[in-house]
Amino acid sequence: MAEPSRILIKGGKVVNEDCSVISDVYIENGKIVEVGPNLQIPAGVRVINATDKLVIPGGIDTHTHMELAFMGTKAVDDFHIGTKVKKEMETLAKEKGVNSFKMFMAYKDVFMLQDSELYAAFAQCKEIGAIAQVHAENGDLIAEGAKKMLSMGIRGPEGHELCRPEEVEAEATQRAITIAHVVNCPLYVVHVMSKSAAKVVADARRDGRVVFGEPIAAGLGTDGTHYWHKDWAHAAGFVMGPPLRPDPSTLAYLMDLLANDDLSVTGTDNCTFSVCQKALGKDDFTKIPNGVNGVEDRMSVIWERGVHSGKMDENRFVAVTSSNAAKIFNFYPQKGRIAKNSDADVVVWDPNLTRRISAKTHHQAVDYNIFEGMECHGIPIVTISRGKVVYEDRQFHVSPGQGKFIHRGPFSEFVYKRIRQRDQVGRPAAVIRKPYEGKVISV
Amino acid sequence: MAEPSRILIKGGKVVNEDCSVISDVYIENGKIVEVGPNLQIPAGVRVINATDKLVIPGGIDTHTHMELAFMGTKAVDDFHIGTKVKKEMETLAKEKGVNSFKMFMAYKDVFMLQDSELYAAFAQCKEIGAIAQVHAENGDLIAEGAKKMLSMGIRGPEGHELCRPEEVEAEATQRAITIAHVVNCPLYVVHVMSKSAAKVVADARRDGRVVFGEPIAAGLGTDGTHYWHKDWAHAAGFVMGPPLRPDPSTLAYLMDLLANDDLSVTGTDNCTFSVCQKALGKDDFTKIPNGVNGVEDRMSVIWERGVHSGKMDENRFVAVTSSNAAKIFNFYPQKGRIAKNSDADVVVWDPNLTRRISAKTHHQAVDYNIFEGMECHGIPIVTISRGKVVYEDRQFHVSPGQGKFIHRGPFSEFVYKRIRQRDQVGRPAAVIRKPYEGKVISV
Amino acid sequence: MAEPSRILIKGGKVVNEDCSVISDVYIENGKIVEVGPNLQIPAGVRVINATDKLVIPGGIDTHTHMELAFMGTKAVDDFHIGTKVKKEMETLAKEKGVNSFKMFMAYKDVFMLQDSELYAAFAQCKEIGAIAQVHAENGDLIAEGAKKMLSMGIRGPEGHELCRPEEVEAEATQRAITIAHVVNCPLYVVHVMSKSAAKVVADARRDGRVVFGEPIAAGLGTDGTHYWHKDWAHAAGFVMGPPLRPDPSTLAYLMDLLANDDLSVTGTDNCTFSVCQKALGKDDFTKIPNGVNGVEDRMSVIWERGVHSGKMDENRFVAVTSSNAAKIFNFYPQKGRIAKNSDADVVVWDPNLTRRISAKTHHQAVDYNIFEGMECHGIPIVTISRGKVVYEDRQFHVSPGQGKFIHRGPFSEFVYKRIRQRDQVGRPAAVIRKPYEGKVISV
Amino acid sequence: MAEPSRILIKGGKVVNEDCSVISDVYIENGKIVEVGPNLQIPAGVRVINATDKLVIPGGIDTHTHMELAFMGTKAVDDFHIGTKVKKEMETLAKEKGVNSFKMFMAYKDVFMLQDSELYAAFAQCKEIGAIAQVHAENGDLIAEGAKKMLSMGIRGPEGHELCRPEEVEAEATQRAITIAHVVNCPLYVVHVMSKSAAKVVADARRDGRVVFGEPIAAGLGTDGTHYWHKDWAHAAGFVMGPPLRPDPSTLAYLMDLLANDDLSVTGTDNCTFSVCQKALGKDDFTKIPNGVNGVEDRMSVIWERGVHSGKMDENRFVAVTSSNAAKIFNFYPQKGRIAKNSDADVVVWDPNLTRRISAKTHHQAVDYNIFEGMECHGIPIVTISRGKVVYEDRQFHVSPGQGKFIHRGPFSEFVYKRIRQRDQVGRPAAVIRKPYEGKVISV
Repeated sequence: MAEPSRILIKGGKVVNEDCSVISDVYIENGKIVEVGPNLQIPAGVRVINATDKLVIPGGIDTHTHMELAFMGTKAVDDFHIGTKVKKEMETLAKEKGVNSFKMFMAYKDVFMLQDSELYAAFAQCKEIGAIAQVHAENGDLIAEGAKKMLSMGIRGPEGHELCRPEEVEAEATQRAITIAHVVNCPLYVVHVMSKSAAKVVADARRDGRVVFGEPIAAGLGTDGTHYWHKDWAHAAGFVMGPPLRPDPSTLAYLMDLLANDDLSVTGTDNCTFSVCQKALGKDDFTKIPNGVNGVEDRMSVIWERGVHSGKMDENRFVAVTSSNAAKIFNFYPQKGRIAKNSDADVVVWDPNLTRRISAKTHHQAVDYNIFEGMECHGIPIVTISRGKVVYEDRQFHVSPGQGKFIHRGPFSEFVYKRIRQRDQVGRPAAVIRKPYEGKVISV
Repeated sequence: MAEPSRILIKGGKVVNEDCSVISDVYIENGKIVEVGPNLQIPAGVRVINATDKLVIPGGIDTHTHMELAFMGTKAVDDFHIGTKVKKEMETLAKEKGVNSFKMFMAYKDVFMLQDSELYAAFAQCKEIGAIAQVHAENGDLIAEGAKKMLSMGIRGPEGHELCRPEEVEAEATQRAITIAHVVNCPLYVVHVMSKSAAKVVADARRDGRVVFGEPIAAGLGTDGTHYWHKDWAHAAGFVMGPPLRPDPSTLAYLMDLLANDDLSVTGTDNCTFSVCQKALGKDDFTKIPNGVNGVEDRMSVIWERGVHSGKMDENRFVAVTSSNAAKIFNFYPQKGRIAKNSDADVVVWDPNLTRRISAKTHHQAVDYNIFEGMECHGIPIVTISRGKVVYEDRQFHVSPGQGKFIHRGPFSEFVYKRIRQRDQVGRPAAVIRKPYEGKVISV
Repeated sequence: MAEPSRILIKGGKVVNEDCSVISDVYIENGKIVEVGPNLQIPAGVRVINATDKLVIPGGIDTHTHMELAFMGTKAVDDFHIGTKVKKEMETLAKEKGVNSFKMFMAYKDVFMLQDSELYAAFAQCKEIGAIAQVHAENGDLIAEGAKKMLSMGIRGPEGHELCRPEEVEAEATQRAITIAHVVNCPLYVVHVMSKSAAKVVADARRDGRVVFGEPIAAGLGTDGTHYWHKDWAHAAGFVMGPPLRPDPSTLAYLMDLLANDDLSVTGTDNCTFSVCQKALGKDDFTKIPNGVNGVEDRMSVIWERGVHSGKMDENRFVAVTSSNAAKIFNFYPQKGRIAKNSDADVVVWDPNLTRRISAKTHHQAVDYNIFEGMECHGIPIVTISRGKVVYEDRQFHVSPGQGKFIHRGPFSEFVYKRIRQRDQVGRPAAVIRKPYEGKVISV
Repeated sequence: MAEPSRILIKGGKVVNEDCSVISDVYIENGKIVEVGPNLQIPAGVRVINATDKLVIPGGIDTHTHMELAFMGTKAVDDFHIGTKVKKEMETLAKEKGVNSFKMFMAYKDVFMLQDSELYAAFAQCKEIGAIAQVHAENGDLIAEGAKKMLSMGIRGPEGHELCRPEEVEAEATQRAITIAHVVNCPLYVVHVMSKSAAKVVADARRDGRVVFGEPIAAGLGTDGTHYWHKDWAHAAGFVMGPPLRPDPSTLAYLMDLLANDDLSVTGTDNCTFSVCQKALGKDDFTKIPNGVNGVEDRMSVIWERGVHSGKMDENRFVAVTSSNAAKIFNFYPQKGRIAKNSDADVVVWDPNLTRRISAKTHHQAVDYNIFEGMECHGIPIVTISRGKVVYEDRQFHVSPGQGKFIHRGPFSEFVYKRIRQRDQVGRPAAVIRKPYEGKVISV
């Protein structure tokens, strides 16, 4: 299908994070050229009728493990940090446009960093203006927990959750935030999966910490009771780290915090394995490949649980699915906003249509779906990526390699403005505001 | 001074709530006509050089008791509700463009509403799409407390705070939020003055309540230890209701919550009385007229304590001084944003200049200043109101009557979208998600 | 059966709130005469072998609506206060040995007191040294909620909970505590039924408030999902005010707080109605008589959910089932402790036996049991009330009228010591510790 | 002075943790032989008149670094654990009567244990029934902080606090509790010095963790603003680890939590250095010997700030100064209670007398006092240790070596009863109460 390079989206309600307004959107050469009411239609322009539809920025998945741009989703790539990367980090940030690095507190003897290494890595991230990301689980405790479960004869998927209960996640989250604060480095916590870890992030933000928490579609759409499902394959399909939580109120809590800006952005940590691949851990949960689907259904799950439920409005939906990610990773308003001069990444969204999620109908290769059977209001009608229609009439029009890496500069203003100011003015005066007779210093 | 109707603000950093960008701003006939880099200068246009300055939306003071537009500040007026106003409220909202009403839980035997009256008033506000505002203090307890203080011989300004300690404010705040939630009505809490009341608001938001808290300049810039000042006139100058709090960590706490969107907007509750007027209560604190200054220094105090301290960035500053108020009171983006088609309410702000606040130099008529001696970074250089320069070179160019009432429609989207959705889908399913075998209902 | 007036309980583990010790207990004429190892057995003494059993103080049910002493349970009676009882309260306290009064914030137009009336009642309680008790639910909101439910066509038992959700309880709890604190009067909150209300009590205690929270057996042993049961009679059997909560994590939360002394004592609010009586509300939930069973199963439910689960130990069990009540209501150590000179109210408890609760086997007249089917570890073997065996071999040996009113003096030390001290030293200095230059006062 | 071996304390108010009663106390051969009203006076008995005085159990200082029994204070000794002590720990516990071991999370490269080492040490403590104690500060962060301060030229005592702010303590506290909980091992946190760390302990207890927090006299009686005192020697006198906190509301907060049983016992961490010794760190705060006085004034400071202020009553005072320590360390009611058969460690306490704390009058060798100038109500009149009067008429009658080590058995019931039960019944069912269709397991 030859795609016209000029598109007019007509009559929709353009939704940005700050407000919504009925407007046309005119696209040329991959960019949004004009946003306004009753735009003239030049000849040769493809017109998409968006009456009674929402026109929203394409989603930005902050956290996925795949190569392909998908449904207008852009992936934010990150690089894992080993213990000695200092020079390489600088090169990546300065020359390659990579501005985020992920550190692991889990996976002992593989990726896990000690506190002093985290301190050094955070300090380095700050120096080069990158976003320090952490996978926050206490690797020592997971290792001990796994040994204990196996020694007790628990070898099924439920052991996966039992050996790394939520306090193991909350503890590491608290520790990472503390270390980052001592460094005065911003922090991004990937895949916040539990109520207690989310509360740690939320409380830290209330205390003024520059920290961002990322729940993922899986955590917002399903829960960890599935690990006890009697069908092993079913249960194994939900295995990821940190695990989904058996407390059934977790979903609603995470969504409340996401709605309230206690949590900031949403990813998927999409990383799919077939039932066959999962079966590697048939007799030992520690060998089950960690990963779930999510990228295809992220927007629908968040709309259903977040917007349709009344927890957030359509503007907050845009904030958590694209704008905030674009701000944090420093390509806002190029991405994450429907405005003149922004990239033409646009989704026409029908909030009234419904669909039922199923592995039978999804477009991903994997043979199960953790949201199987979930009824969702809100579905995409047309998806435009850099000016091209890539999804329409329930069909994809993409080929591998169409995704494009976005060069991201360091020192995102959204993240670093407060950090720099604090370096200048020092530790908040309130803390040591009335020192005993003597000098006041700020550090 | 004849004001040209066309102004080009050149080379400044335009600050909106979502991001900042170096841009020119072109103004014609009271509106912003263009925002972009290197705009052409038409003949006859007045050019204001804003290099190295910030260009921010004019402040919106959500809460003041005066008639005059001042330093680009717009006042959001509200109407106090007695107990039987139901029809009149509807008229005001539908025909007069008033979309907010203030209810008192304090001032027993004068304004104070009982819970059942609050319930009815909130229900009425919701029906007509207005913003229900509350002055949240327990009037019964204040009345009892005042009697007790006087009976103990405490007649000075400290009695004002002692008879209405912060728990009296926190309790009423909790109660108002509970009643509003039962009605499913949005709520706006005016002048949040204490840590405990602010925490009530913040926790309610985290639980998904549609509630907005408004700290005021006085509470963000000074504290209630002044009530114990040995100079009666000094102490009396700080008397307002609810009182400033003697806990010296209150300021920083309120600012942290404001930075984190736990609190949403800032007002002043500006209501000034001279020392002579205050003297009415020389022998009985209950007779001291309640009110403090603030409107002139609001922006500076918030910049100093919020932005200069590193607690918030310049974008959040814009959000809490104008954008959020405009959204809540339903005239965004006409106000609260520097964008094409918005009203030309603009302040050119120099973040590097400093000034010392003093009654000797302020422009208000009152003969003292509660922020006396406070050093502030960040001062306005030029203020433009609906396309006219009203402040420049430290001089005002306004005359009484220049202020203009802004007709505000009901059912602000920012406030009511979630409310309406909740009415449709009912009480969150999570609460009664696994009812015992039977039917699931939502209410 | 002629009961010997002298009993020796041999070889049991005597459990008091502070520690447990293997000891004999010798009883004569209704009193404990000796506690110690290897007591001599006088002739004519009945010996009860308690080897491998616990010997615990008889339970004190702080909250029941019946006349009969039951299973060693003593009831603490309270008197409801209308609005003008001031003189009568004094008489009851000084002459009749009644030292607690219950005030209602619910039941509008019947019992409900306004805040100013609560203030006055609390002040009066304090003056006469009584315990002020509150039923904490916002009566105005319940009245409005009930109207709303009926107008929506919801007439079944689920409407009972839906019209008085837990925030209605939490709000009133917060308000009562605030009023009591302003008065500096101790407060006792009866039947704490929800997580949020319990948290209000717990947080208040952490802030130093003299407040005691009483969960009841129903709230510790079952939950409010039953209101949605499709069998109307089943659902109606659980109707009480405040209602049981549908959040299934409520039980464990209340028990955690009870274990941790955030909540202090346990009652039952026992008030049973037959299915026929409940049927009065067949077509209108507001007419269902409020009340559930509990008195018979209280000890077992708390043992099972509290001690067997590992949340509390046997000593804390004694504290929450008898000692704390005895302290609060001012008859400790006459009751609530197994010690020389204490009343011989003793239960021989087997922690290893189990039983299944059922209406088929219970001793109460009512024809259903809200704990139906619950398996309980820990059952009483022998119960002694004032020196007489009243329960043994699963048989009761009591007759109506055996219960005895215990004269309770005012100004319980456990409750009032801190209150009196605070009246002397005034508002904690920390709050206004560094007043501005001037005098420091405490109020 | 020849001390009679028989003493009758006449007419005092005997204060135990559960209640107070006017009683005589008769002592013979180091034991309390009788407690009751109007005891007969055998010939040759020394009579101490305690009319209008309190008779309380001798204090137990849970945390001191000295050898001498002092003012009736018993020290609970602990042993520091290196990384390989497993066998030695068992020997100490089984044969030497040592039942507590202290682990350090601070002091990197010296004492600091890694998380996996803590896990192993806690597991070993649990196996042998000992109390695991932790010094909770993040040693990595302290090391980095100290480097940073010195690099900034901050070398004075204020640097001591600035390099280990309270979040460094709170983080480690949270981590230790998490590790202990995963092991299901009880935990004792020594010297809780900050609000945030205390809140971590309190919240953990509310969640059911078996954890005990120990504030110390210094933290309850003074604060960290002294580190900014312009007299170096004054400032250095307050140096200890973790440091006192500059937030002046810390004292009152810790006392509130101690009053409310969120914190359990009080120590001193008494470890005194003269001004000369402190001067080792004249030019580098990291070299100032860590330690403050406290043992002599502990009881007075807690009485003044806790009891006189109205935060706790005399019974809670006994609990936090002796009974709880005796329970935790497994020698209750031998110590910590005035009862028949208990050790005759008794203090006759006059709650009405006052004294002013000063280095000029104290009995410790050190040449300053961190509580200098503090006015205290409540002073000891007579102190009896194991039946001997060791303090009277403001004079001590002790000689070195009089202190006696108390053999303490493992598996203190107070601490281990819940732990053992949880090992049997597994992870609370509430957490995974409704697993997906399948089996329920508890771990």
